[in-house]
Amino acid sequence: MKKPLILITNDDGMTAPGIAALVEVARDFGQVFVVAPDSPQSGQGHAITVENPLRLNPVNVFEDIVSYECNGTPADCVKLAKHLLHKNQHIDLCLSGINHGSNASVNIIYSGTMSAAMEAAIEGIDSIGFSLLDYSHDADFTTAKNVVRTLLEKVFRHGFQPDCKLLNVNIPKVKPDELKGIKVCRQADGYWMEEFIVGTDPRNQEYYWLTGKFTNRDNGEDTDLYALSNGYASIVPSHYDLTHYKSIERYKVLEE
Amino acid sequence: MKKPLILITNDDGMTAPGIAALVEVARDFGQVFVVAPDSPQSGQGHAITVENPLRLNPVNVFEDIVSYECNGTPADCVKLAKHLLHKNQHIDLCLSGINHGSNASVNIIYSGTMSAAMEAAIEGIDSIGFSLLDYSHDADFTTAKNVVRTLLEKVFRHGFQPDCKLLNVNIPKVKPDELKGIKVCRQADGYWMEEFIVGTDPRNQEYYWLTGKFTNRDNGEDTDLYALSNGYASIVPSHYDLTHYKSIERYKVLEE
Repeated sequence: MKKPLILITNDDGMTAPGIAALVEVARDFGQVFVVAPDSPQSGQGHAITVENPLRLNPVNVFEDIVSYECNGTPADCVKLAKHLLHKNQHIDLCLSGINHGSNASVNIIYSGTMSAAMEAAIEGIDSIGFSLLDYSHDADFTTAKNVVRTLLEKVFRHGFQPDCKLLNVNIPKVKPDELKGIKVCRQADGYWMEEFIVGTDPRNQEYYWLTGKFTNRDNGEDTDLYALSNGYASIVPSHYDLTHYKSIERYKVLEE
Repeated sequence: MKKPLILITNDDGMTAPGIAALVEVARDFGQVFVVAPDSPQSGQGHAITVENPLRLNPVNVFEDIVSYECNGTPADCVKLAKHLLHKNQHIDLCLSGINHGSNASVNIIYSGTMSAAMEAAIEGIDSIGFSLLDYSHDADFTTAKNVVRTLLEKVFRHGFQPDCKLLNVNIPKVKPDELKGIKVCRQADGYWMEEFIVGTDPRNQEYYWLTGKFTNRDNGEDTDLYALSNGYASIVPSHYDLTHYKSIERYKVLEE
């Protein structure tokens, strides 16, 4: 039987510990290749590069794994993987991450990690984005790797839903034996309570630097934030149809 | 009665004809101020600037309208408007655009124009993004301005739905008397059939340049693409909850 073809990408570049963790687990499940940005792309959202040429640079980072660095965004990496590198071969699965820091709740909107996974889903590729709720560079990925392995076993057994090819997976910062389990959830309604630090630069010009505190304004017990704060990893089945269906009828007053 | 406070932004910068069209109409409805990027931000998606300081530069582009250029993204402009410029006063409405080119269907995901509007909605501000299906710099905005005026009259009369503060409005490239009307729609399932042009640069290095053709794979007659191709302006009530609710139960097999 042919091994599944698995694309791995992220938004932090090839040297981030999270992508190594993902490669380490995924290589047991198929033929892995890596296309990742050549510089960190945090907060890039779903950017694509249309104004500039893109480059791919083969690199030797992971033993026996074909890997390219790209000068573009995470979404660009996926587009190049599909439309240039594997034009004639279906990519069976795209894994993005493992991101440092949460992509739960509304963070999916801002996330380069999730934009890569979403781009893959738009292109018809089953896709999972992984994030670990630990910002530190020396974060322990043991729990995260366990979750990746468990989920890959399950998705290769059960398959994806054809109308929902995108999973947003977040993993709490807990030791392996403290993880309570894995929950399928809805996206919590959280937001960033934001502030700008106002400063003055060496040339005496004012500048503003974004800072914020994430706040959960959702009381539901079926959300990703609730699962995470109770020691579970969260899976939110996600899509790119942003229609608010309930409002279509109610906004008919605007028609003419 | 106090005039509504209206924030105007876009992703093409202060000199784009579309923002002038929006200011021209919106100033009849309230106290308008402008915060827009200082350089074009097409394809930026929902990027925010966390690694660098932001700057605001007051400019005198529109008569009697307070206007700032910002070195950040469209989403940054909205954050600065709310959390720095109008910290203590609610912004009643955010208008983004008028974008050159379609933000219908999946284009909402990639759009800087819509990311600004969505950021406003996340911040609790009623918000509309406008796009005209005409890429040319000398596009005629007459039809678009008529649609903006009609919609502003209606939204100030009927208000927004409290659980859906984001409208994605697209306007077909037709003469004012050819516009059939305005339809409230769902987002069509379209995608970009993409290719990379492969070239060689002056230093003999290979490069890849993204090109694509937009394709509608959705047969529905209730979609934005269907409305637009039949001569209507489209409104898609939109939100930032990306959960695919129908799949939550079906993905419970992944739990443990």
